[in-house]
Amino acid sequence: MPEYKAPLRDTRFLIDEVFDFPASYAALGAVDATPDMVAAILEEGAKFCEQVLAPLNRSGDEEECQFDNGVVTTPKGFKEAFAQYGEGGWMSLAADPAYGGQGLPHSLGLLVSEMVGASNTSWGMYPGLTHGAMSAIHAHGSEEQKQTYLVRMTEGRWTGTMCLTEAHCGTDLGIIKTRAVPQADGSYAISGSKIFISAGEHDMSENIVHLVLAKLPDAPAGTRGISLFIVPKFLADASGEAGERNGVSCGSIEHKMGIKASATCVINFDGATGYLIGEVNKGLNCMFTMMNHARLGTGMQGLCLGEASFQGALKYANERLQMRALTGPKAPDKPADPIIVHPDVRRMLLTMKAFNEGNRALAYFTAQLLDQAHSADSAEQREEAEDLLALLTPICKAFMTDTGLEVTNLGMQVFGGHGYIREWGMEQLVRDCRIAPIYEGTNGIQALDLLGRKVLGSQGKLLRGFTRIVHKFCEVQAEHPQLKGYVAQLATLNQQWGELTQKIGLAAMKNPDEVGAASVDYLMYSGYVALAYFWLRMAVVAQQKLDAGSGDAAFYQAKLATCAFYFKRLLPRTAAHLAAAEAGSECMMSLPAEHFGL
Amino acid sequence: MPEYKAPLRDTRFLIDEVFDFPASYAALGAVDATPDMVAAILEEGAKFCEQVLAPLNRSGDEEECQFDNGVVTTPKGFKEAFAQYGEGGWMSLAADPAYGGQGLPHSLGLLVSEMVGASNTSWGMYPGLTHGAMSAIHAHGSEEQKQTYLVRMTEGRWTGTMCLTEAHCGTDLGIIKTRAVPQADGSYAISGSKIFISAGEHDMSENIVHLVLAKLPDAPAGTRGISLFIVPKFLADASGEAGERNGVSCGSIEHKMGIKASATCVINFDGATGYLIGEVNKGLNCMFTMMNHARLGTGMQGLCLGEASFQGALKYANERLQMRALTGPKAPDKPADPIIVHPDVRRMLLTMKAFNEGNRALAYFTAQLLDQAHSADSAEQREEAEDLLALLTPICKAFMTDTGLEVTNLGMQVFGGHGYIREWGMEQLVRDCRIAPIYEGTNGIQALDLLGRKVLGSQGKLLRGFTRIVHKFCEVQAEHPQLKGYVAQLATLNQQWGELTQKIGLAAMKNPDEVGAASVDYLMYSGYVALAYFWLRMAVVAQQKLDAGSGDAAFYQAKLATCAFYFKRLLPRTAAHLAAAEAGSECMMSLPAEHFGL
Repeated sequence: MPEYKAPLRDTRFLIDEVFDFPASYAALGAVDATPDMVAAILEEGAKFCEQVLAPLNRSGDEEECQFDNGVVTTPKGFKEAFAQYGEGGWMSLAADPAYGGQGLPHSLGLLVSEMVGASNTSWGMYPGLTHGAMSAIHAHGSEEQKQTYLVRMTEGRWTGTMCLTEAHCGTDLGIIKTRAVPQADGSYAISGSKIFISAGEHDMSENIVHLVLAKLPDAPAGTRGISLFIVPKFLADASGEAGERNGVSCGSIEHKMGIKASATCVINFDGATGYLIGEVNKGLNCMFTMMNHARLGTGMQGLCLGEASFQGALKYANERLQMRALTGPKAPDKPADPIIVHPDVRRMLLTMKAFNEGNRALAYFTAQLLDQAHSADSAEQREEAEDLLALLTPICKAFMTDTGLEVTNLGMQVFGGHGYIREWGMEQLVRDCRIAPIYEGTNGIQALDLLGRKVLGSQGKLLRGFTRIVHKFCEVQAEHPQLKGYVAQLATLNQQWGELTQKIGLAAMKNPDEVGAASVDYLMYSGYVALAYFWLRMAVVAQQKLDAGSGDAAFYQAKLATCAFYFKRLLPRTAAHLAAAEAGSECMMSLPAEHFGL
Repeated sequence: MPEYKAPLRDTRFLIDEVFDFPASYAALGAVDATPDMVAAILEEGAKFCEQVLAPLNRSGDEEECQFDNGVVTTPKGFKEAFAQYGEGGWMSLAADPAYGGQGLPHSLGLLVSEMVGASNTSWGMYPGLTHGAMSAIHAHGSEEQKQTYLVRMTEGRWTGTMCLTEAHCGTDLGIIKTRAVPQADGSYAISGSKIFISAGEHDMSENIVHLVLAKLPDAPAGTRGISLFIVPKFLADASGEAGERNGVSCGSIEHKMGIKASATCVINFDGATGYLIGEVNKGLNCMFTMMNHARLGTGMQGLCLGEASFQGALKYANERLQMRALTGPKAPDKPADPIIVHPDVRRMLLTMKAFNEGNRALAYFTAQLLDQAHSADSAEQREEAEDLLALLTPICKAFMTDTGLEVTNLGMQVFGGHGYIREWGMEQLVRDCRIAPIYEGTNGIQALDLLGRKVLGSQGKLLRGFTRIVHKFCEVQAEHPQLKGYVAQLATLNQQWGELTQKIGLAAMKNPDEVGAASVDYLMYSGYVALAYFWLRMAVVAQQKLDAGSGDAAFYQAKLATCAFYFKRLLPRTAAHLAAAEAGSECMMSLPAEHFGL
C-alpha cells in the first residue's frame, strides 16, 4: 500500500494564499478558527489519518465486512479507530454547539474528511454518512429529535445512514414502495426493504440512526408523496439512550468491486417504529440537504483516491529502474534510470498532479461557499453562495470522480504489471474509486441536474454567476506578463461556455432530448473550464510569490509548471466535449431500441 | 453474469461483405476455408464458447486459482473444458499440417479466439499463450523440437508459456539475470526466477513448455545478449512423451485485480534443462514472433470484454425501468420507462457499440494481413502486408485495450449501483480488462513502438502505407451521396496525421524526448482515424445493401446510425489528442523529478 502523507503544504497554499480562509472565517465570525487553531487541527487530523486509518486500508480490503445472521462485523481495527475518532472530537468539529458541537466552519470539516478519505475510503464511509444524517436532522428535525439523535451522533456514539434506494428504484424515487402507517402515538410503522445502504449495519457504534424515505398510505403518487423518517436500530429509552431493538434488520451485505470494508446492506423494516422528520410529503426536500452534503463528499472521494494514487505512483517512479532516458543516462551508476526520466511516465504523473491539485482548489472553493451559504451575514451573500454551490455541486461530484478514476487508473499504469497485483495497493484505489461516479446520483444524473435543473432551469442565471467571476478575473489578468496566453485561452472557453449553453437551450425548447444528449459532455466541458480558472488563480499567486522572492521557490515553480501542463495537455479536451455536446440528439435517438443489438 | 451470444452476424458482415475473406482465402490457396466451412467452424466455435466457457466465467472469478506447495489448481470445469477444446480440434485449427495442424488461415484462428476471450478471458489465457509459443517454435525451432513440442501442443495435450519478466525488469529485458550454462550434451542449465508467467503452472495439461529468455555466461550486455530456450516442465522421454520432472517449479501465484482464474506464476528455474531455440543471442527476435502474436491477442481482449459488457448493458437497459422519457412516456403501462429511452443511456450504449464494431473491423483487417504476411504468393505482397501489420499491431494492442476499458466501464455505469455488485458480472469485465493496457508491453511502450520505431524509424514509410489506402478510399468516395461529409472529415484527419508526424519528426531530431512526449496521444489519434476509415468502409457497404433493397435493412441502418454517432461524438476526440501531441515535451520535462511531490 502506498504510504499516505497528508498534503498539508498544498492545503495551506489554498486556504492561506489563494482563497484566504482566515479572512473569510473572521468575516463569518468563526472566532475560534484562528490560523493557529486551523493549522493545529489539520496537523492532528493528518496524524490520525496517517497513523491510525491508513494502516487499516489494505487489511480492510482483504478482510471485508462479514455478515452472519443479521450481524455485520467490520474489519479488525475499524471499531477502535471510530472510538478514537469520536474521542478526538472529529465527529463534533463542525457541528452545532447547541448540540455538543465545536461550531467550527464546515469547510474545516471538509478538509479533515479529505484526509480521512485519502487514507481509508471504506472507513470514511461510516462517519461520512453520519455527518450527512446529522445535517439533515439539524436542518429539519424537531428539538427533541436533535437532543436525542444529533447529540449522540455528535459525540461519535451513534452513526447514521440514508435509506433511499429499493431494488426496483434508485434514481426514480417517485416509485418507492416502503410504507409508513401513522400510529396512535404519533409515530409511524415503517415497512419495506431498502438496498445499497452504506453503514446500514455494523459493530462500530451503540446505535444506528436510519433516515428512511417512505410513503404514507394516502400519499400522492410520485416524488410529491415521499416523507422522511428517523428509524433507529434501537429505540431510545426514557433517558434517551439506546434501548429496545426496533423492527429493523440487515438481510444481507453486498459483495462488491471495492470499498469492501464499507458495509453495503439490505435493510428490512418490518413495522419498525419511525418518527417523521420535517413535513409530510416533503421528504425529498429534507433528503436533499443530506444528498448535497453527500455529493460533495463523493466528489472528494475522487480527489482522495487520486491523491493516494499519486503518492504511490510518484514514489514508484523515482525508485523503479527501467531503461535509459532517450537523452542519455541519468543514473549512470545504476543498471537503468528511474522511470520518472521517461516523458510518458511524466505525462501520467503530471496528469494526476494537475487533476488532483485542480480538483482540490475546486473543492476548497466550494467548501468556502458552504460556509458562506450557512453563515454569511446578509441574505444576499447567502443566496449568492447558495447559487454558486448549486451550480458547482454536480460538477464537483461528477468531474472530480470521473477524473479521479482516470487518475487512479494512471497510478496503476505507472506501476506496470505490479499495479495489477493486490499487494501493491494501487488497484484497490481504482476499485474503491469506481463507485464514486455511480452512487449519490450517477454522473449522468449529475449532468442532467447541472444542465437541465441548474443552468437551463435558472435561464442561465446560475451559470452566469460563475462565468462572471471568471470573466472579471480574465479582465484583471489580461496583461499578466507570464500568464496572459493562458488567460486568453480561459476567456475564450468561458465565452464559449455561455454560447454552448444558449445553443443547447434553444434546441431544447424544441426537443427536450437535447438536454440529455448534451449533458455529460456539457458537464465535462464545464469542469475543465472551472479547473482552468482555479489553475490560473493558483498560478497568479505562485508567480506573485516568486516575484516577491519567496523562500519556497520550488513549490511555486512546480505550481506554474503543472499549470502549464494543464493548459497545454488537458484543457484541449474541451474541444472534444464541445463538439460532442453540440452534435445534437438525432444521432443518438434515431436508432430504434430493438435495433441496438443488431 | 451477462449471457454471451457470439455476434456472428457482425462477423459475417465483416468477413463476407466488407473484407471479402472468401476471395482472399481463395487467392492464398486456403482451399479448405470455403465459405460453408468457415460458417460451420464459427457456429461450432460459438456453441462451445456460449455453452462451455461462458458458464465458467463467474465461478472462475470467485474460485480463483489455488496454490498449494508448488501445485496450481484451476477452477472447477477449466480442465475439462480444455480437454474438450483440444478434442474439438480448436488448438490445431490454424496450425501447420506438417505437425498435426489443420492448416486453416490464421485469421480464422483469431475469429475463434475472439469468441473464447469474450466468453471467458481467464480461460482463454491458457490456449492463448500456447498458440503464441507454438508460433515461436514453428518459426524458430528445429525439426526435432517441432516434432516433440509443437505436435503435442497442436494436439492440445501440452501447453506453452512465455517467460520474459523478472522482478527487476519487465520492459527493460536487457538487464535480465536468468543464466543459461552450456552442458556437454548440447543442452543448457537454466537458473533464475521469472515472474508474471501466465499459465506458468496449472492442472490442465500433461506438460508445460516454457519459452525462457536467458543469458549465456559470455553474452554481450543488453538485449543483444539474450537467447531463447525451451524448458519443459517434464523432460521428454525416449518416446517424446512427458517423462522425468525438470528443475522447474512454481514458487507462488499472484493475487490480482482480475483474470483471477488465469494463473500468474513465479517460475523458478534451478539448473533446469533447457534447449536453445533459434540462434544464440538472437532470443529477442524469436520472442518477438510470439509477442506480436500476443499483442494482437491482447488487443482482442479489449474487444472481447467490450462485447461481453455491451451485451449485458443492452439487456439491462431494455429491462430496467426508471424515470419517464423527457419526450413523454414510452411504456405508459409500466411504472416507468426502460432506461434505453434516455439519451445519456443511449450515449453510453452507442459509444460501446461504435468502439466494439470499429475495433472488430480493425482486428479483422489486421487478421487478413496476418494471412497475407504468412502466405501471399509474392514477396512484395508479403512485405506490404508485413509493413501494415507492423504499423497496426501497436494500434490494435493499445487503442483496442484503452477503448475496451472505457467500454467495460460504461457497461458498468449503465447498471448504476448494480454494476458495482459482483454477482451481476459487469465489474468483473472491467477488472479482467484492466490488465490488457498493461501487459505485453504497456500501452505507453506500444506508443513508443508505433511512433519511434515504426513510423519515424521507417522515415514515415510504414505510415504512408496506410494513409495512402485511406487517401485512395477518400478519393473514390468523395462524392458519396450520403456519406461525403464524413469522407471529407476523414480526408482532413488523414492529411493532418501526416503533418503531425512530420512536425514531431522534425522536433525529435533536435530532442529525442519529443517522441516520448507525443507518443500516447499520437497513438490514440491514429486509432481514432483508423477506426473512422473502417467505419466508413462499413457504412459504404451498408448503404450499398440498402440501395440494393437488401432484406436485412435494419442491420444496415443500425450500421449507418452507429457510423454517424462515431463521426459526430467520438471522432472529435482527435482534436484533443492532436493538441496534446503537438504541445511539445517542455511542459513535461521542465519540472525536476524531486519537485513532483511539492
